[in-house]
Amino acid sequence: MANKRVPLWLLLRAARCVCRYPRHTLIPVTVRHVYASQSIFPLVPASSRLFFSTNTSGQGSLCIRTHTCGELGSGHVGQEVTLCGWVQYLRQNLFVILRDFSGLVQVLIPQDESERELKDAFSGLSVESVIKVKGRVRLRPDGQRNMNMSTGEIEVRAESLEVLNTCRKLPFEIKDFVKKSEALRMQYRYLDLRSSQMQYNLRLRSRLVMKMREYLCNVHGFVDVETPTLFKRTPGGAKEFVVPSGEPGMFYSLPQSPQQFKQLLMVAGLDRYFQLARCYRDEGSKPDRQPEFTQLDVEMSFVDAAGIMALIEGLLQYSWPEDKGTISTPFPCSTYEEAMKDYGVDKPDTRFGMKLVDVSEMFQRTQIEFIRDAIVRPGGCVQAICVPDGAKHLKGKDMEFLKQTAKTQFNQEVDCMLVRAEGSIKSPLGRLIADTTRLQLLLKTSAKAGDLLLIAAGAQERVRPLLGKLRLQCAELLEARGVPVRDPSVFHFLWVVDFPLFLPKEDEPERLESAHHPFTAPLPEDAHLLYSQPHKVRGQHYDLVLNGCEIGGGSIRVHNAAQQLYVLENILKEDPSVLSHLLEALDSGAPPHGGIALGLDRLVSIIVGASSIRDVIAFPKSFRGHDLMSHAPDLVPEEELRSYHISVLWPSVKNGQDNKP
Amino acid sequence: MANKRVPLWLLLRAARCVCRYPRHTLIPVTVRHVYASQSIFPLVPASSRLFFSTNTSGQGSLCIRTHTCGELGSGHVGQEVTLCGWVQYLRQNLFVILRDFSGLVQVLIPQDESERELKDAFSGLSVESVIKVKGRVRLRPDGQRNMNMSTGEIEVRAESLEVLNTCRKLPFEIKDFVKKSEALRMQYRYLDLRSSQMQYNLRLRSRLVMKMREYLCNVHGFVDVETPTLFKRTPGGAKEFVVPSGEPGMFYSLPQSPQQFKQLLMVAGLDRYFQLARCYRDEGSKPDRQPEFTQLDVEMSFVDAAGIMALIEGLLQYSWPEDKGTISTPFPCSTYEEAMKDYGVDKPDTRFGMKLVDVSEMFQRTQIEFIRDAIVRPGGCVQAICVPDGAKHLKGKDMEFLKQTAKTQFNQEVDCMLVRAEGSIKSPLGRLIADTTRLQLLLKTSAKAGDLLLIAAGAQERVRPLLGKLRLQCAELLEARGVPVRDPSVFHFLWVVDFPLFLPKEDEPERLESAHHPFTAPLPEDAHLLYSQPHKVRGQHYDLVLNGCEIGGGSIRVHNAAQQLYVLENILKEDPSVLSHLLEALDSGAPPHGGIALGLDRLVSIIVGASSIRDVIAFPKSFRGHDLMSHAPDLVPEEELRSYHISVLWPSVKNGQDNKP
Repeated sequence: MANKRVPLWLLLRAARCVCRYPRHTLIPVTVRHVYASQSIFPLVPASSRLFFSTNTSGQGSLCIRTHTCGELGSGHVGQEVTLCGWVQYLRQNLFVILRDFSGLVQVLIPQDESERELKDAFSGLSVESVIKVKGRVRLRPDGQRNMNMSTGEIEVRAESLEVLNTCRKLPFEIKDFVKKSEALRMQYRYLDLRSSQMQYNLRLRSRLVMKMREYLCNVHGFVDVETPTLFKRTPGGAKEFVVPSGEPGMFYSLPQSPQQFKQLLMVAGLDRYFQLARCYRDEGSKPDRQPEFTQLDVEMSFVDAAGIMALIEGLLQYSWPEDKGTISTPFPCSTYEEAMKDYGVDKPDTRFGMKLVDVSEMFQRTQIEFIRDAIVRPGGCVQAICVPDGAKHLKGKDMEFLKQTAKTQFNQEVDCMLVRAEGSIKSPLGRLIADTTRLQLLLKTSAKAGDLLLIAAGAQERVRPLLGKLRLQCAELLEARGVPVRDPSVFHFLWVVDFPLFLPKEDEPERLESAHHPFTAPLPEDAHLLYSQPHKVRGQHYDLVLNGCEIGGGSIRVHNAAQQLYVLENILKEDPSVLSHLLEALDSGAPPHGGIALGLDRLVSIIVGASSIRDVIAFPKSFRGHDLMSHAPDLVPEEELRSYHISVLWPSVKNGQDNKP
Repeated sequence: MANKRVPLWLLLRAARCVCRYPRHTLIPVTVRHVYASQSIFPLVPASSRLFFSTNTSGQGSLCIRTHTCGELGSGHVGQEVTLCGWVQYLRQNLFVILRDFSGLVQVLIPQDESERELKDAFSGLSVESVIKVKGRVRLRPDGQRNMNMSTGEIEVRAESLEVLNTCRKLPFEIKDFVKKSEALRMQYRYLDLRSSQMQYNLRLRSRLVMKMREYLCNVHGFVDVETPTLFKRTPGGAKEFVVPSGEPGMFYSLPQSPQQFKQLLMVAGLDRYFQLARCYRDEGSKPDRQPEFTQLDVEMSFVDAAGIMALIEGLLQYSWPEDKGTISTPFPCSTYEEAMKDYGVDKPDTRFGMKLVDVSEMFQRTQIEFIRDAIVRPGGCVQAICVPDGAKHLKGKDMEFLKQTAKTQFNQEVDCMLVRAEGSIKSPLGRLIADTTRLQLLLKTSAKAGDLLLIAAGAQERVRPLLGKLRLQCAELLEARGVPVRDPSVFHFLWVVDFPLFLPKEDEPERLESAHHPFTAPLPEDAHLLYSQPHKVRGQHYDLVLNGCEIGGGSIRVHNAAQQLYVLENILKEDPSVLSHLLEALDSGAPPHGGIALGLDRLVSIIVGASSIRDVIAFPKSFRGHDLMSHAPDLVPEEELRSYHISVLWPSVKNGQDNKP
C-alpha cells in the first residue's frame, strides 16, 4: 500500500509468491526405536508437517511406511524397509506374519541376546495388533521358501518395533477359512472386511467404476452430473421411502432412479450424462436387492438404441477386470419373443442349452386327456425340455421337487420321462404314448438314453415360464450332484429387445400398465398401434442380461410431449398433472434421447462370483433392512419428530391396528 | 451334448464364439432427406441396430450427428457434416444459428428456387426447436467472418433438414444476456441449464471430479467405497433428516457425513478410502448451504497431518482446471491463534491486507472512558484496522453501516477515524486522543492520509471477530465503490491448524463441546492436558481455506479406544453406548488414521466465480428447501404414511400447537 497508484489487489498479487506464514520445515525423520511402547501417540506431531516417506505416489506414498507388505520380493533384498500392518500370527516366537491390504510378509524376530528387549516386545504381541516394523529384507534360507506366498522368497529381519495399537480378543479370527454366520459378519463388519475376499471385492469394484468413468468421461465426453435424492414421490413403481420436511404434511421421497432428472438434463442440452447414482427402494432386502443400491445411470441425446447398446458394450469391454479374461463384443441379441420361446424367461441364462421345445404337433391326437384338453384351447401347447443325463443323475426326490415347483408356483402338472437305453420311456404316461409319438418326441428334443424329458401342457404364457423355471432348477440339481452345467468362470451377455410396451395389470387385466416405465418410446413401426391396439405395441426398450441375471435396462424415451401425454392419460389412465414439469419440458425443445441403467451391485457380484450383493457392498443392510453393526434404524425421541410434524402410530396391543400409545 | 464325455459347460464354452442370436447387420445409413417432417419418430428403428456415425469415440461418437456445432472450423471446409442442435435464432431467412453444448454455428439456408421446399422448411422453424441439418462446410465470404465466434470463419450450407422436435413459446429466451429471476430459473431449470455459463459450470465440475478421482485412484491407490445413507441418527451436530422404516417408531437418518464409516473402513484395513459422498443437513438453504450436498471424503491409515495436507495439495494441483491458471504448493499454513490475531476469523481471506493491529499499549493512559474500562479488564484490548483509501472512498452511510454491524451483531461500539492529509484525525473521539497517541497509532497501523481507521475496544474474543467482520465489509464496500481490493481471478489457499479441541458450550459455558467432532485426536504435546485442563488441548485438526471460505476440514483421529471413551464420557459427558460399535472397533486393532472432507459444491463455486453453490448444482433446492420445478416436498396420502407407522401432526389453528386435524 506504499505506492497508492498501484491497485491494492495487484500489490497483493505480487506478494503472493511469499508465503504468508512461515512454512514448517520439511526435515527427514529418524524413525524412533520404540519397543512395545504401546504409545497412544505413536506419530510425530502433526503440526510439524514431517515426511516419513520419500514416496510421492503409489500405495506407499504419504505414509509412515516405506513399502506395503505384499509388494516385497527378491528385488528388495538388502533394503531397509518400514512396514505397518496387523499381526496375522506369531510362529514359535521366531516369526511374525505381518498383514496389510496388499498381502502377508514374514518378519524374523532377532534371537540374539543383545536384542532381547526387541524379542520380548514381539513375544508380547496379540493377534491383530497393529505394529510398525523396521528391518532389512533378506532371502529366506534354502528350504524355507514358501512358493504359495507371493512374498515367500524373502523375510524381513526386524530391527525395531513400535506397537501402534493393541487388539482385544476378537469374536472371530481373520482367516479366510474361518466360517462365520452372516449375522456375526454384519455385526463386526469392520473385521469381516479384513478378509482377503472382501478386500478383493471392494477393490475390484472401485477399479471397475474408475474404468467406467474413464470410458464415459475421457473416451466419450460424458458429463458426470449429480441429481437430487430429496425429491418428490412418483406414483406407481416400487414403494419409496418418505422423508418428512420442516413443513407439516410435506414429504420428500428418496428416488428409485434419477429417471426424470436425466431426461430433463437432455432437455437442458447437456447431451451426455452419467452418474453412479444412489437409488432407494423400500421393499425389504433380498439376496440381490437392498433398500439402497447403486446404478450406473446413462443418458444420451441424438442417439438410437444401437448407439446405447454399442456404448455399453464398449464400456464393459473397456472396464472389464483383467483377471477375469476378456469379453467379446457385440453381445448377442434376442427379441423378447425369442427369449420366451426358447428359455421361458426374459433373462435367459445362455451358458447352457436345455431349451424349450414345442411338441404340440405330435400330441394332436393323443389319448392323454389333460394334454388334449390343453391343446384344443386357444393358445394351448405342449412343451418339453430335455435334461442331458438327467435320468442318470437326478434322483426320485429331485423329480418330486420339480413337480412340487410346478404345482405350488404355477399350479401346473409336469411329467418327468426318463429315457432308457433302448429308447423306451419311463413315465406314468409312458404307456399312453404311441410309439410314433415317442420316437418323434425323442427326435424333436434330441433326447438320448440317460436323458430326462420334462413335459408340460397348457396355455403358452404359463407353460413357458414353468419350463423356464424348471430348466434352471434342473441345472442347479445337476450341479448339486456334481455334474458341471454352467462354467462359473464364463460370462454370457445377452441383449433382449422388442419387449411389449404395455402389459395387462395383474389385478385389473382389462387395464394396461407400462412393462418398464411410461417414458419408453414405442418402436417406430408399432407407433400407429398406440391409438388402436396399444397392447400390441413393442417398446424401444433393451435389457442387458448376464448369466441369466438382468444387470441393466434402458430405452429410447418418448421425446414428443403430445405422445407422452397420450400414453399417460389415455393408455395408462394416470393423472398427468403429477408429471406436468416433464411434459412442459418435452414441449420446450426436447431432443430425441435415450439411456440405460446398469445395476452396479449385481454386476460386480456376478463378476467376483459372490452369491449375494452383500458381498460387494461395504456396509450392507440385513434382510430386514437393519444395520446390525450400528443398530439402524433406531428409535427417535418424540420431541425430535415434533419438529417434522409427525408422530408415531404405535400398533395397539388390543387389535393390532395402528394407534397412538 | 453329442459327446457325453466332454462336460456340458465345455461344449457350451466352445460354442460361445458363435452368436446365439443372428446379429443384426450393421449397414451404413443414407441420411434421409426429410423436410420439416415434424416426425415423432425421426430415428430409424432401434431394433435394427444401425450406425449413423463412424465415430467410435469423442463427443460425436455413437450419435446421429457427425460433428458437434462448436468443433467446426476452417479445417472442415469441404466436408459434408450432419449436425444436431437447437435453433438459437433465424436471421432474415438467410441463416439459422444452430446451438449444441459445444457452441454455435451458422447454417446457410439455400436461396435457389430449386430448393424452395428446403428454404420454406427453415423459415417455419421456431426458436429452440431441435433440428438435424446435413450440409457442407464452407468458408464465409470475405467481410462476413465473425472473429467473436469460435466457428466464425465458416458456415454450413444446408442440404437437408429434419425437425426432431418443435418448441413452444418459452418463459424466457436462452441467451446469456437475458436476466431472469432466481425463482423462474429454478422453475424452468431445464431451460436455465442451456445457458453457456451453467453448461460451463457443470462440465467444469465433472472434469474436476474426474481428475480428483484419477489422482486418488490411479496416482495414490485409493479405493472408492460407497457408504450407506440410510443410517442411524448421531446425537449432536446438525439436525438430521429422519426416514421412517417399516417398523413402528424406528427411523433411519440421512447422515451429515460418512465419518463413522470411513473410520470403520480404516479399522477394516482398507488403508486408503475416498468417496464423493452425498451428505444431508436439515438446516434450510443458505447461499452456500443446501439440504443435500457433496463432499470429497478421504481417509488414510498410517498417516500424519502432513501426509493428508500434502495429499490434498497434490490433489488440487493435479485437478485444477487448466483455464484457471496453476496453483502453487505447498499452501501457506497458519495456526488458529495467528489467524484470529491477524484476521479476527479462523478462515481468513488472505487476498488482501487490512490486518488487525493491537493498539492497547498506546491507550493505557487514555482519557476515553469506555476504552479505559475495556483494557483494564482481564483479556481487554484495543484493536484497529486500517482501511487504505477508506476515508477517500467510503461515505458517511458506509460508516453508519459498519457501526450498525458492530452494534447489532456484536453489541459493540466501533470508532471510525478518517486520517486527514496533515495527519490529523477526524472522529468523535479525535479531540480526546493525545497527539503522541495519535502519532503512535498512525505509525503502528501504517495509516496514511485518506485512510480510514476502525478502532474497537473490549474483550479480545469479541473485538477480534468484530474487526474481522468489519474488515470483510470494508473490502465489499470499497469494491462496490469501484476500488479493487480482491482480484477475483486469484486463488489464495491457506491451511489453518492447531485449533482448540474443545470449546465452551454456548448455552452452558461451564461444559465443553468438540470444536469439530469428538473423533479428533489431540496434539501429542497437549494430550496430557486432556486429564487436567481439557480446554487447553489443541487438536490435530486442519482446515483448508480458499479466498476466505472454509472449503475443507479434517483431522488425525483418536485411534485408541480408551482415549476415545475418556473424551466421550468424561469431557463431553455423552452417553458412549450410542457409539459402542466404534469404540469396539477401535479396540479391535485400529490403525492410526486421519482424513479430510472437501466441500465440493463450495470449491467449484469459488473456482467458477459463482455467487452461490446453486450455480454449480444441476437441480438445487430453493432457500426454503423446495424443488420449484417438481414441487418437492409434497403431500403424501395418510394411508401411505400408515405403512410407515406415522401420522402428520397438523398445526392447530387455535393455539399454534401441533395437533391432529
